[in-house]
Amino acid sequence: MYEAMSDVSGRILSSEVSDFIGKTVKLKGWVRIRRDHGKLIFFDLRDKNGLIQVVANSNTSPEAYKAARELRPEYAIEVVGSVNKRPEGTINKDLASGSVEVEASQIKILAKADTLPFDTGAEKLNLELPTLLDYRSLTLRHPSISEIFKVQEEVVRSFRNVSEDLGCTEIFVPTISSSATEGGAEVFKLKYYDYDAYLTQSPQLYKQIMVGVFERVYTISHAYRAEPSVTTRHLSEVVQLDVEIGFIDSFGDLLDALETVGTSIIKDTAQKCGEILSSFGAQKPLIPTKVPRLTLKEAQDIIYKFSKGERDVRGEQDLNATDEKLICDWAKKEKKSDFVTITHYPTKKRAFYTMPEPNNPEISLSYDLLFKGMELASGSQRVNDYEKLLAIMKERKLNPDNFSMYLQAFKYAIPPEGGFSFGLERLTMKLLELENVREASLFPRDMERVDERFSVSK
Amino acid sequence: MYEAMSDVSGRILSSEVSDFIGKTVKLKGWVRIRRDHGKLIFFDLRDKNGLIQVVANSNTSPEAYKAARELRPEYAIEVVGSVNKRPEGTINKDLASGSVEVEASQIKILAKADTLPFDTGAEKLNLELPTLLDYRSLTLRHPSISEIFKVQEEVVRSFRNVSEDLGCTEIFVPTISSSATEGGAEVFKLKYYDYDAYLTQSPQLYKQIMVGVFERVYTISHAYRAEPSVTTRHLSEVVQLDVEIGFIDSFGDLLDALETVGTSIIKDTAQKCGEILSSFGAQKPLIPTKVPRLTLKEAQDIIYKFSKGERDVRGEQDLNATDEKLICDWAKKEKKSDFVTITHYPTKKRAFYTMPEPNNPEISLSYDLLFKGMELASGSQRVNDYEKLLAIMKERKLNPDNFSMYLQAFKYAIPPEGGFSFGLERLTMKLLELENVREASLFPRDMERVDERFSVSK
Repeated sequence: MYEAMSDVSGRILSSEVSDFIGKTVKLKGWVRIRRDHGKLIFFDLRDKNGLIQVVANSNTSPEAYKAARELRPEYAIEVVGSVNKRPEGTINKDLASGSVEVEASQIKILAKADTLPFDTGAEKLNLELPTLLDYRSLTLRHPSISEIFKVQEEVVRSFRNVSEDLGCTEIFVPTISSSATEGGAEVFKLKYYDYDAYLTQSPQLYKQIMVGVFERVYTISHAYRAEPSVTTRHLSEVVQLDVEIGFIDSFGDLLDALETVGTSIIKDTAQKCGEILSSFGAQKPLIPTKVPRLTLKEAQDIIYKFSKGERDVRGEQDLNATDEKLICDWAKKEKKSDFVTITHYPTKKRAFYTMPEPNNPEISLSYDLLFKGMELASGSQRVNDYEKLLAIMKERKLNPDNFSMYLQAFKYAIPPEGGFSFGLERLTMKLLELENVREASLFPRDMERVDERFSVSK
Repeated sequence: MYEAMSDVSGRILSSEVSDFIGKTVKLKGWVRIRRDHGKLIFFDLRDKNGLIQVVANSNTSPEAYKAARELRPEYAIEVVGSVNKRPEGTINKDLASGSVEVEASQIKILAKADTLPFDTGAEKLNLELPTLLDYRSLTLRHPSISEIFKVQEEVVRSFRNVSEDLGCTEIFVPTISSSATEGGAEVFKLKYYDYDAYLTQSPQLYKQIMVGVFERVYTISHAYRAEPSVTTRHLSEVVQLDVEIGFIDSFGDLLDALETVGTSIIKDTAQKCGEILSSFGAQKPLIPTKVPRLTLKEAQDIIYKFSKGERDVRGEQDLNATDEKLICDWAKKEKKSDFVTITHYPTKKRAFYTMPEPNNPEISLSYDLLFKGMELASGSQRVNDYEKLLAIMKERKLNPDNFSMYLQAFKYAIPPEGGFSFGLERLTMKLLELENVREASLFPRDMERVDERFSVSK
């Protein structure tokens, strides 16, 4: 995989060093920790694949030793040296390259770093979230942070794979819209030449239009919510993983697809990133053959019984964060599942395009997929009849003129269809059991921060 | 690939029909053209994989015949019928499924369509661009349009593959920024809670920060340019395919990577989508073993000679559209190459982070990759020294406070690095030799249109 890298410069990666015992190699990376032991200086070098110990010996290589004395944490350097097996008793079992070290003959500084604002040498960065984010360009480099985004990359790869297995075509849809996607006030408004425009709250309307073209589509897109609140599970800009499927035979087809995509992502990623999950102390996900399915009403009844009557949300219109946690606790205990699907939310609580249950239009053909106590995905069967869509819009006081491109698709026939949407940051967060969704976004946006905190920067 | 689809409903796709001769199958799709021949009604059914001819016979299946009489173009339907070999002489060689037809026993209408505003039955949609876009939700369904986006999907897949082969990690970066990415006025401003924010002109600053984390990264992101002009090659919102590579040994490493990525995308896509390219009349791309490389000055000299002195742009600061076409004509003729790399543009014409040539700071370590007469990609080696970056910002009157998260990365050492960025719509456009970049965007945004033309909708 990294051949192209090695070929060009002769450089090898930390993970490859143990294949070169007795040979001279070139390494590049950042200095992690320097330890002076008199005539020997040790330091860890960090590169894209991990860490490797380097030693500079004043007797055998005085120039490299002299250069090593200059090194400070985060200096970007190039090292040439010979690969030695480490002496018995000094092998570091926590390190993939822990059985070898490189004795430097040359050290070249490529870029110097300022004195760090905090120590980054420990296995975990024990910093409060605001500090983690204030120094994001630095803290992201720490292995305990960068690994989060290796997991995230794998989540997306798994999503693509399962979506393609389902026969979906990948599409790219715009994020600038002339109207608020789903109605509601939580939209960001922008000046678009001489006009007003909005950032899309989701790729929803476009992926539905594309059912008319490719039947089954998926898209990885940005979605924007101007939520005027700060919680541990909301961001103002997120990455969404969306699927939309046409020509379904039944509501059940959609639930099958939802659960297939959700469990495949979690299963594949947990498998490929098992070591990272362990290092985060995250429990291996419990993935059942059949994800338990409950209507909202059934879930509320279970919460009442499961809490021995202490929590009674029967008749509520939705599950809140506490309820989601409780019903997941129940599913884990009773069904050995970290997943649970909740269906049939009240129609008026869902977006206008949600199909009402034919026999009881007060409730809808909608669903959420919960995982480890939190909603990971949401979706529904859609109203695909043009006239019905128009009627619902009027009822909800939405102006059809603002949705004309969307309505055009239905005017020319969209078959029975539906879909769902996963939040990438939440998927990453729950897989690693992080406490705050901000930890699962490279550069999180919320009402207090765009890179810098507003109170600081403005 | 489509097993999941067939499994659930028993439905098969048009492309599978010829495997079921003599059997009863279920199909779903949209009606394309209906032809009445007395007691026989023929129509083409379009699904995600292509077209299949269906016949309804009033003698053998009066119910299906009756339903077929109701059908209009774009009706979404379900058909059950038996698969027959077509009689000799009626085989349609233009159709993958042209040797078979389905004799309907049942036809069920899933959704009706309004009367179409124009005929969509021909092989090409002969419509002007404004009409194509006014009716985007309908025109996208036409095979001659939807195929553009099958090619686009393949372009992105090829980009991911080659980027991963280069050892890049996929990252997801935000599009809301607190400052204009690269300076300049062509940014969209938005109201972000109580503050002003901007849509990023590119993922540039974030991908550079991420070199400090993963060394080599790629990202597929949206980029926004408030260009107050209407051309055939600019959009206000585009999808960018970005790569950034750290620990380079030389400027040449970047040119190698640029050309590897560019030629791989074009080669792989042209191979996988050969039939579509042919149907668009696009020439098979000429991909040389070694892409010709010229400095801007060399290119200008060649343009002068190649045009026999008719075009003299020696001393100009850039190549314009005419020059790009001429130098590509030259490369095609003299080097048998549809690609040409132009390097060393004037420093002041490029963004602030562009590395000046050490021996001549007036020109820069920058490059564009041209293909078939147009710039496909652009990039440079970057200034990676913190103090130099600060000095350049001051010189260019950029406020370092607006770039503090970016500068933080360099404060803690970024090694020599650089990268490049491809425009997805332009790649698609040039591969298919489309005339206007809007044809290569599902829902193009420009100063005149967000889905609907402003003059119409406002």
